[in-house]
Amino acid sequence: MSAVLVVGSVALDSVETPFGRIEDAIGGSGTFFSASASHLTPVNLVGVVGNDYPMERLEPLRARGVDLAGLVRADGESFRWRGRYRHDLNSAETLETRLGVFSQFRPQIPAQFRTSPYVFLGNIDPRLQHDVLDQVEKPRLVACDTMNFWIESRRHELLRLLGRVDILLLNDAEARQLTEEYNLVRAARWILARGPKHVVIKKGEHGAYMFSSHSVFFAPAYPLEEVFDPTGAGDSFAGGFVGYLARTGRADEAAMRRAVVYGSTLGSFAVERFSIDRLLEIHRVDIARRLEEFRKLVAFEEELDE
Amino acid sequence: MSAVLVVGSVALDSVETPFGRIEDAIGGSGTFFSASASHLTPVNLVGVVGNDYPMERLEPLRARGVDLAGLVRADGESFRWRGRYRHDLNSAETLETRLGVFSQFRPQIPAQFRTSPYVFLGNIDPRLQHDVLDQVEKPRLVACDTMNFWIESRRHELLRLLGRVDILLLNDAEARQLTEEYNLVRAARWILARGPKHVVIKKGEHGAYMFSSHSVFFAPAYPLEEVFDPTGAGDSFAGGFVGYLARTGRADEAAMRRAVVYGSTLGSFAVERFSIDRLLEIHRVDIARRLEEFRKLVAFEEELDE
Repeated sequence: MSAVLVVGSVALDSVETPFGRIEDAIGGSGTFFSASASHLTPVNLVGVVGNDYPMERLEPLRARGVDLAGLVRADGESFRWRGRYRHDLNSAETLETRLGVFSQFRPQIPAQFRTSPYVFLGNIDPRLQHDVLDQVEKPRLVACDTMNFWIESRRHELLRLLGRVDILLLNDAEARQLTEEYNLVRAARWILARGPKHVVIKKGEHGAYMFSSHSVFFAPAYPLEEVFDPTGAGDSFAGGFVGYLARTGRADEAAMRRAVVYGSTLGSFAVERFSIDRLLEIHRVDIARRLEEFRKLVAFEEELDE
Repeated sequence: MSAVLVVGSVALDSVETPFGRIEDAIGGSGTFFSASASHLTPVNLVGVVGNDYPMERLEPLRARGVDLAGLVRADGESFRWRGRYRHDLNSAETLETRLGVFSQFRPQIPAQFRTSPYVFLGNIDPRLQHDVLDQVEKPRLVACDTMNFWIESRRHELLRLLGRVDILLLNDAEARQLTEEYNLVRAARWILARGPKHVVIKKGEHGAYMFSSHSVFFAPAYPLEEVFDPTGAGDSFAGGFVGYLARTGRADEAAMRRAVVYGSTLGSFAVERFSIDRLLEIHRVDIARRLEEFRKLVAFEEELDE
């Protein structure tokens, strides 16, 4: 079981869904990733919050093995995001983004985190993602996320980053934007040709593909009767995915596939309640049960009498 | 191996995709279903064409076991559909529909077809779907399709039909429209409460769910590098699905799941070329190979050392 270093946002989210609303809930890519991965392995979180951040609400994370030594408190306001989902829960409408102290974020990796064997670069400026890689020592595996804003504004740095990561995780719209290929098989091939050994293309409620040069794997999203709040699903997926690899220390095809299913599983829990509430509530047995339901969801017999 | 009776349209399609265009290609729900199902079992086709229909182009279907005794030639023009797909191949833009003789279609089931043990009611007026069921003798299994137009204009007849069919196949938008439930798990439950023992909700490139009262199964769409023309994918899916059940005579959960994979497989071939061209070209070995690829696509090991 190896520690995962995650660098990402630690934010306050105000969210409105068809089922309810919440103000200033704890959120951010680093937070969701940590809440998810900590079910599987120790997590070292690096990020920044303002001096208005309710630090006591991160205590449950610390209690479950998330080391907050790299979470800096800076003078100013915390990163706040306000968004709304309508019935199509696959796409968020951003109502307001206030970067606050996050706009000046320069990740400093504490000395004791620099040898973390697993690294997840959350969705931040690719220049900062490079900075993080410059500070760590020979990680065994580096995974990274990105978004439309960086694909457009930091294309060069992002392409250079692809040569430094083992796994890129992104959603279908981002894959299309990055590669200018509509077809996801072609998009994946484009990305694989630029460095990553695996690319995971997430399609929200439509599941996720993992491509390598010689294989393709697909895991559906878990068919929930109520998706309460999709915020953080992607980062929770990444937490389950990288967390599983760090837990097992494996990187073979069987482990990679199972990591995708862990990602889908943790992502499916994240959306059942606001914020990281559900991720903090579940136990190993809940995860095991849902993994088994994923297995049943796609299982079919190879041969029947025909 | 039992015969399947299919009642549906036999049309001429003019289609434009990002990859090419074709005029007056043979198409229609009955045609695609037959071309697909005939890989698995004998098919009895009931439909109508105008006296302008190029009957010789249906000869390959006859040669592979599709009985055309129920295909009436009527005075007038054949059903013609003209459509276009842009890069989002999941949704067709209908440019023109000319019903021609199809507008007066009253299915007459030939005497020798009335005992077909398997029945597929293609997407036609629910009143005609009822008429067909009134003419057949105790089929072992009845599956049916529908579309937005009938959901709106023939809601009452369609709801009554649900009490007479074993399996409803429809796409996600249709399921939402029919049930007024956005969530597909809830939509499926709504439909299952009204008669069908199984409901298959097709999501195009995003795969297909099959729900029963006690289980849910999901099969992804095959990740093709080029979806050439999506026309007929749904009917080809239905052909593989019902064809497999008719071939095996089974209706247990394992067979139903495998039927969905056959449906996905035949649907994936249909979209590789215009019209039924690819369906006429493939052989049993191609189908077997793609089934194996489907298995690999979703396979993950239940337990690894953790």
